[in-house]
Formats: sequence, structure tokens, C-alpha cells
Amino acid sequence: MFDLTESLTRAKNARAAMAAASTEAKNAFLLDLAQRIMAESGYILEKNREDLENARLGGMREVMLDRLALSQERLGGIADAMKSLAGEADPVGVVTGGGTMYNGISMTKKTVPVGVIAVIYEARPNVTADAGALCIKSGNVCVLKGGKEAFNSNKAISEVMKKSLAAVGLPPEAVCFIEDNSRETTARLMREDRFIDLLIPRGGAGLIRSCRENASMPVIETGTGNCHVYIDASADIDTAVKILENAKTQRISVCNTCESLLIHKDVAELALLPIGEMLSAHGVEIRGDEAVRAVLPFAVEATEEDWGTEYLDKIISVKVVGSVGEAIEHINRYSTHHSEAIVTSDYESAERFLSEVDSAAVYVNASTRFTDGGEFGFGAEIGISTGRLHVRGPVGLKDLVTYKYLLRGNGQIRQ
Amino acid sequence: MFDLTESLTRAKNARAAMAAASTEAKNAFLLDLAQRIMAESGYILEKNREDLENARLGGMREVMLDRLALSQERLGGIADAMKSLAGEADPVGVVTGGGTMYNGISMTKKTVPVGVIAVIYEARPNVTADAGALCIKSGNVCVLKGGKEAFNSNKAISEVMKKSLAAVGLPPEAVCFIEDNSRETTARLMREDRFIDLLIPRGGAGLIRSCRENASMPVIETGTGNCHVYIDASADIDTAVKILENAKTQRISVCNTCESLLIHKDVAELALLPIGEMLSAHGVEIRGDEAVRAVLPFAVEATEEDWGTEYLDKIISVKVVGSVGEAIEHINRYSTHHSEAIVTSDYESAERFLSEVDSAAVYVNASTRFTDGGEFGFGAEIGISTGRLHVRGPVGLKDLVTYKYLLRGNGQIRQ
Repeated sequence: MFDLTESLTRAKNARAAMAAASTEAKNAFLLDLAQRIMAESGYILEKNREDLENARLGGMREVMLDRLALSQERLGGIADAMKSLAGEADPVGVVTGGGTMYNGISMTKKTVPVGVIAVIYEARPNVTADAGALCIKSGNVCVLKGGKEAFNSNKAISEVMKKSLAAVGLPPEAVCFIEDNSRETTARLMREDRFIDLLIPRGGAGLIRSCRENASMPVIETGTGNCHVYIDASADIDTAVKILENAKTQRISVCNTCESLLIHKDVAELALLPIGEMLSAHGVEIRGDEAVRAVLPFAVEATEEDWGTEYLDKIISVKVVGSVGEAIEHINRYSTHHSEAIVTSDYESAERFLSEVDSAAVYVNASTRFTDGGEFGFGAEIGISTGRLHVRGPVGLKDLVTYKYLLRGNGQIRQ
Repeated sequence: MFDLTESLTRAKNARAAMAAASTEAKNAFLLDLAQRIMAESGYILEKNREDLENARLGGMREVMLDRLALSQERLGGIADAMKSLAGEADPVGVVTGGGTMYNGISMTKKTVPVGVIAVIYEARPNVTADAGALCIKSGNVCVLKGGKEAFNSNKAISEVMKKSLAAVGLPPEAVCFIEDNSRETTARLMREDRFIDLLIPRGGAGLIRSCRENASMPVIETGTGNCHVYIDASADIDTAVKILENAKTQRISVCNTCESLLIHKDVAELALLPIGEMLSAHGVEIRGDEAVRAVLPFAVEATEEDWGTEYLDKIISVKVVGSVGEAIEHINRYSTHHSEAIVTSDYESAERFLSEVDSAAVYVNASTRFTDGGEFGFGAEIGISTGRLHVRGPVGLKDLVTYKYLLRGNGQIRQ
């Protein structure tokens, strides 16, 4: 029988050992894990097959089954990610400020791990290894609560991680896998600020909303992206079509994919004809306002709800606007503040869009698909933050630490 | 009749104008405010007298009345603080990272205001001006909810702030004073993440707990300090007494004041005798464990509750411990993670304490009283964060901003 309080107590007790863990030990863990995932691939894949069978019986659709599925090749990808993470710099113990105070006290501002990080995530089992490894490399304890569809796969991967921790002399309790899929346990988890220092939900809007409303510890919201592309009056239409095609169709179900298109009225007809053709060729359904439907009669009527929807599917909402100002206002109202792009050849429109659009990443003449830890050169990421505090955009190793001030004196007192 | 939703809507609508406000306009606001506070001091002091009368009738104790009271001199202090803030660097628009991506996209990481910041605070009316001015200087809109004892004073100061905003062409709605003291309104405020981007409670443990449990937006917890001084076996006793005297008695009711003393058993008797004398001379009551009471028979028996209590009063809890490890364990269990000090002449004890104590500021041979934005050289502060995310320790201008990534391309799409 799984006992949440007992598991979290053991996790919290591993905090001090993890905070003190050497870079060498943490990297040894990652390299051991890379090997062990391959050595135990038979076991992991067997457990994954159990999940896949259950999911098929439950009627899961093909695209989701594909996200759930592991293979020798995908495990190889996970192992490579672990090796690559071992090569990244340790984010703990970095001096980021300090100096000598007026009174002679020596001040050092130094990064330290956050402590216990809980990650609540959905379908893909590779998140278990990715999120767990990022937490361990940054000296944290991780509490992992995956989707119930991937339960057996996630559990198998956490078992392997615990073995790797033990093999290098780190506490196996630093990976705490929540073996209870009840809603009640997830709700309780969100209130356990006695044990958990930070909660990272990674998933859809419903999960994010639930964490925001119910969590009693700090939350870094990740994973929802209602991203916009705006085609300005001055846009080069070929460039606009090419960017939209990439932003919408290169990968349909990820958070930096474009879900909504805005077009300046002066180029609406000119742009909508090739765009309608391109999207239809990719099988993408268009939900448009009246002006869009006047040009593209096959488009479905967009409702108010469409403007705020992240489809993660072959659907896009399209609206004609009167000005760059109207585009910015619409975006700031409906977007999830993830990534937005303008296609323009006008300097003023570009700079205004960059300045006024309130999102983590704002692009001129480039695809929203670049918002990604790897693309940004930050290495592996645990998600893309759409919140404003602590970290915005890709959440990498450097964001899983906090800091403290160390002050060395020789008897100073305040006057 | 005060309408919360309407007020917050108007506050949020001022966000864009504040984010775009020039450094010049923001500084002009601060200088205008400095003058106007003095020009309207008659009105502000009259309103403050109303609060003081009500408080006296309500039986408020003298130390609290003193915190509530304004005077020509105290208003002069507020005006000086505004002038000094005008001299500080603008935290908005600072480029903190970026470069050219592998694909030629130019990336700029730039600071931007957080947005709408709500501050919930208690007795002192100067917080209205201090918190408001820090938010405005950092390009934010502020929502101010002060204690009901200072209602008239706070309202008068916000009115003056609104006049100064209007005088320099900034939106007066950027200061939103909550004119409703009901618990229901405060509870509703904590759930308004549609309008509020960040909540900063500044006050006692009850307020902090309530925000943590109920707020649906990010919270920076400030203001609670159960700070410890630990006297190691190797401590110079004269230095220890001097540091403790400063940490406990220089200002009784602030968050960086020492509330709990730990002493190594080997020096317990030697240290407790002069400490007992010094604390008694200051009228400080000692609540001790058995070992303490064996040396100081006049000490009161400490209960479990005492170890976790921030007295903000002439009381201190005192415990004898067997080792530096036991001291660290006790501190990490009971402290609010604000500021802790060790007095020692042993290198290993000092470094271990610095490394293992999990607080925002950790001192060797210096008073905890130094944890302060001004002392740390950061300028004015809105409080001391005891949380771990976004900012730890003094919260100044530089912490009231977030950032975004600006990406300038020429047609790049992801491969």
C-alpha cells in the first residue's frame, strides 16, 4: 500500500545529501543510468507493452499511442540524453554575486538546489527519465507523478533510476515515484508544501489551471501554448506562407506550434489564397471569422472559444485584423504567453510587436517552433514556462536552482 | 461603493502604459511625489490622527501605535526615500543575455515589468509609499491592501501618489488602493489571477500562511523571521555576547531580529552567565530548555511551540545543543529560512554552517540584523523573501521585473 506522507518524508530526508552531492557523483549517476536503461531495456519494454495493451483496450487514439510507445531506439535516445546531460555544467555552487560590504563583511551569493521538486506530467514515459535526470543533476530530489496511461513504463524507469542512484552512492529516495493514480492523491500532493518546494506541471490547460488554483507551493507552469502568427500588411507573402507552414504543420501536437493566425486586412485576400491551399494540403481545418470565410468558403465558422483554444491537432483559427495594434491586443488577450511571431517588412511594426506582445518569446520573421531549450542553446529542458516569475520560456538546469547569501564577518554588529 | 472587479480591471488596463513608461517619466513621478508629500503633509497627518484616535480607542499597545504614527519628520523620511529611488537605475529594458543563434536569428533577453503586483501589508503607512514607488519605478501597476488600522493614512498617501502619476502623464490607475477592509475582499483578491500577476504579502506568519494556501497567483513570501544565533564550542564569548545583543535587542520587532539562541554544551555555562545578565538588563525574557534553566534559574520553561515562534517582542528561546550538526538540524527544522548566524573560531564549523543551513542569509561572526536591502547595497526593498523561487533575501527593484526573449529573423524555419 502506497503511503504518500511516508514517501514524501523519505524524499525530503534525501534533500541534504543531494544538495551536498558532488558534480562527479551526479554525472556518474547519469552515465550509469545511460548504460542501465539499455541493459534493462527488455524489462522496460515489457512494462511499456502492458501500458500499450491497456491503452488500446481503452480506445486510445493512434497519435497518443505513438507518444506512449517506447522502443529500443527511443530508449537509446533517452540514454543519449543522459550522457549529454552529464556533459553539461553543474548549476549548483556557482557564485553569481557578492563583494565586500562597507563594514568589511565578505558576501558571496551562491546557487543552491531548490530542494524537493515535484513534476506532474501526462502521456510520454520519457519525461520520467528527462525530468528526473534534470532534477538530480541540479542537486534536487524529484517527486514524479506521471499519467496513469504510462504507469507501468514510468514505474520501470524510476526503478532503474533508483538503482543508478544507489550504484553511485546517492540516496535512491531522491527519486520518489508516486505509485497511486487516484485524483485524491494528486490533490493531496498539491497541498504538501511541508515536503515539496516547487511544483512543475507539464501538460494541458486543465492540469495547469488545477495546479494554479490548488497548489500551496510555488508553481512553474509549463506546456500550454496557444501561439500566434501575425501576417502584417507589409509582409512578404512567400515568407509568411513558409513560416506559417513550419509553425503549424512541422509538429502538430507540441506547445510551440501555431494555433491561431492573424492577417492584416490589406493582404487578407492575397495571403489567404495560398495559405488556404497550403493548409488544406496538410489536412488542417480552418476556423475563420467572417472576413476569412469570404475568401475561403470552405472554412468553418470560428467561435469565441476558438480564439483561446490550443488544439494540438490539425485545426487552426484564423482572423483578419485592421492593424498591428489590433493584432497585439488580440494576442495579449487570448494567448498563453508562450511564443508569437510577426511576419513583416516594416521596421516600426516589427519593433512595436516585439515591445508590446507580452509573451516569453516574440519573433520577427521566424517560426514559433524555435522556442525550445536545445534550439536556444540551453541544453535539455523540463518544459517551457508560460509563467512570469523565476523563469520564462525554456526551463533548463540553470532554472532548477535558487541561491543564498553567505556572509563571513569578524564580529560586525549593525549600528 | 468600492467594486473590486472594476478597480482591478482599471489597474490591469494601466499595465501597458506603465510597461512603456520612460525612465524619465518614472523618475519625474518620484520627485513630484517627494515634493507633494511635504506640500500635502497637513492633510496626510490629519488622516493619520484619525487612525491613531481609532487605534487608541481600540486599545492598541504603545509599540504598535508608534509604528502607525506619522509626523512631519517621518514624512520627510518618506520624501527622501522617493528622491533616493529616483537616483537608482531603471531595472526595465536591461539586456541580460542573448546572441546569434546557429541559424542566424538574433536573440535578445531583456527585462520587462512583472505586470500587476498586489501587496498585502500590515500596520505601517509608510509601506504604501515605499511599495507603491518600487512598483512604479519598475514599470509595474500596484494594488495596495494595507491594514485596516492605517486605512485613512494609507488612503491619503495613495491619493497623493495618484496626483503625482497624473502630474507626469502616467495613468493614476497604476496605483490601485483597495478601499474595502472586509476579509471577504482580501480573500477574493487572492484568487484574482485574471488581473494580478504577483502577490507580495508583507507581514506575520498568519498572513503568509493564508496567502500560500489561498492565492492562485505566484506569491513572494516576505516578512517572517524566526532567526537563530548559534554559539559554537570554539566561540569567543565576548564576540558572541556582543553579536547576540545586537541581533536580539537593537530593534525588537523587525524580521531580521534574533528570536532563538542555540549554545554548544561545552560553553553553555560560560556563555549563559554573561548572556543572562545582558538579556536581563535589556528586559528580555528567556525561555530555556532544562540545561539552560540549570544555569539560569530565572529562565521560563520553553515549550515545543517556542522553538517555532517569531516573538517580535522582548522574549528569546534558548537551547543547549550537543554539536554544530545538532544546531544545523534544529535551525533547518524550526527557522523561517530568513537569516541565521554562527559565532565560532573553528574553520570547519563555520564552513559547515554556511553550507548546510538552508536560509536566505547565513552569517559567520556577524549579526543577523544586516539582512536588509540597504545594508546589502541593493537600495530600497519591498521586504525580505523567505521563499526559494525568483528571489531570496531582500526584494528590491531588480526583483520586480521578469524578462522576455526577442528574436529577430529573416525567414528562418525549424528543420
